[in-house]
Amino acid sequence: MHRTEIRPLFGDVDAMNVVYYGNYLRFFERGRAELMRAAGCPYSQIAALGLHMPAVEAGLRYCQPAMYDQLLAVEASVAWVKKASCRFEYRILDLEGGGERELVTGFTVHGCVNGEGKVKPLPPPAVEALKKHLRD
Amino acid sequence: MHRTEIRPLFGDVDAMNVVYYGNYLRFFERGRAELMRAAGCPYSQIAALGLHMPAVEAGLRYCQPAMYDQLLAVEASVAWVKKASCRFEYRILDLEGGGERELVTGFTVHGCVNGEGKVKPLPPPAVEALKKHLRD
Amino acid sequence: MHRTEIRPLFGDVDAMNVVYYGNYLRFFERGRAELMRAAGCPYSQIAALGLHMPAVEAGLRYCQPAMYDQLLAVEASVAWVKKASCRFEYRILDLEGGGERELVTGFTVHGCVNGEGKVKPLPPPAVEALKKHLRD
Amino acid sequence: MHRTEIRPLFGDVDAMNVVYYGNYLRFFERGRAELMRAAGCPYSQIAALGLHMPAVEAGLRYCQPAMYDQLLAVEASVAWVKKASCRFEYRILDLEGGGERELVTGFTVHGCVNGEGKVKPLPPPAVEALKKHLRD
Repeated sequence: MHRTEIRPLFGDVDAMNVVYYGNYLRFFERGRAELMRAAGCPYSQIAALGLHMPAVEAGLRYCQPAMYDQLLAVEASVAWVKKASCRFEYRILDLEGGGERELVTGFTVHGCVNGEGKVKPLPPPAVEALKKHLRD
Repeated sequence: MHRTEIRPLFGDVDAMNVVYYGNYLRFFERGRAELMRAAGCPYSQIAALGLHMPAVEAGLRYCQPAMYDQLLAVEASVAWVKKASCRFEYRILDLEGGGERELVTGFTVHGCVNGEGKVKPLPPPAVEALKKHLRD
Repeated sequence: MHRTEIRPLFGDVDAMNVVYYGNYLRFFERGRAELMRAAGCPYSQIAALGLHMPAVEAGLRYCQPAMYDQLLAVEASVAWVKKASCRFEYRILDLEGGGERELVTGFTVHGCVNGEGKVKPLPPPAVEALKKHLRD
Repeated sequence: MHRTEIRPLFGDVDAMNVVYYGNYLRFFERGRAELMRAAGCPYSQIAALGLHMPAVEAGLRYCQPAMYDQLLAVEASVAWVKKASCRFEYRILDLEGGGERELVTGFTVHGCVNGEGKVKPLPPPAVEALKKHLRD
């Protein structure tokens, strides 16, 4: 499990003063990127191998809204790693209320492809990094 | 089922020249908004009643990427309508390849709340509009 | 002068229910892209030549806010075309109030570079298209 | 002068793998918000007084592109403060190349309005905070 702190900008919220429902996928991206960096395999290293890890599925449950400038944590973990795909899970937590209230949860499943879009095995450094954050 | 045409901007795509995974939720919003407008109840009419319809859940399956400036259709339909919630379903189709290839599918579930976030029944004009696009 | 209609999404507005100040540059992009398409040289044709037209300068004046779902026109025109650069000018107009009130004005200056970022002359089809929309 | 570090997400870049030209205004917002917070007057405090500071003008010069995941600094400073407006200036710097290369510069001018959009004096805590970061 890896944690990244985020504060929503005006550019992230909508007219209700809460984060726009699509922008949590940006927050998930940040959580995922920082998990990979912390595990020693930043995403840019995967890209440097000519590989990409596009999302093939995503899901979100919006329990409570996150608001402008609210201090949030993005918790990211890895649910499973297969030969050419993996699943991340996320929780967005409110760090201001005192009790780390859960605001949004979700997941993303990613494949691994080369520049022509052909499925390829996840490269060893990515597999190793992902396994460090595998949930029990 | 309602159709809206969209062409991704540079501002919608990422470094792979394909639409960023979170931006399909923008496209879903457009499809949903145009469905409601076509059915006689634009979302601004709901907001004018002091009500909002926040997403409580969303899901996406990314089958094929949509690219910069590709002519796309967003197909939106209503899967069910309850007293204080409803479910939209979406398909993003490629209109350029000749065969209306399905690129991304997904759904969103929405509640209905007032300005204080209290759950409220969907207003009658919204229910009526949603029922016009209810799938069999 | 070329006109494109736009309606801001929830994903475009901020907590004031008005379009986020950075998102007008998305609207300018749309106006510019549709001007080029209408003039017979869609941007994808330039990209197919291995060329890009990155912005080197931009400016915006925010006179009145544009609101959620308001019917807007983006007016784009070309102020000048040089060998390897050009300047677009834009006006965002409110089409709902009856009088085409001006909301936001701005400009962007673009260079022309190849895939390595080296300055290149604008390709002839782009020059021809830009000249069609040159203001007097 | 105040500094905030930022790393562009995939959601910030376009097909050239460089930050989308409109998204630098998001980075400017972050720089401005963190300057105000550091000076003891976070923007949420201004909003709590029923006041807003909408941009009335913005300008950007794109010298060099910022890339995906590149470690950047946003430097924000205050050029002037008047009764009901102020001007911020920004520099986006590359922190990775060794020499703090300047990538993008820009400015924003902000007014001060109440919830009805009527011009109001900047509140004293905002003026005080802004003056702390006034350039010589």
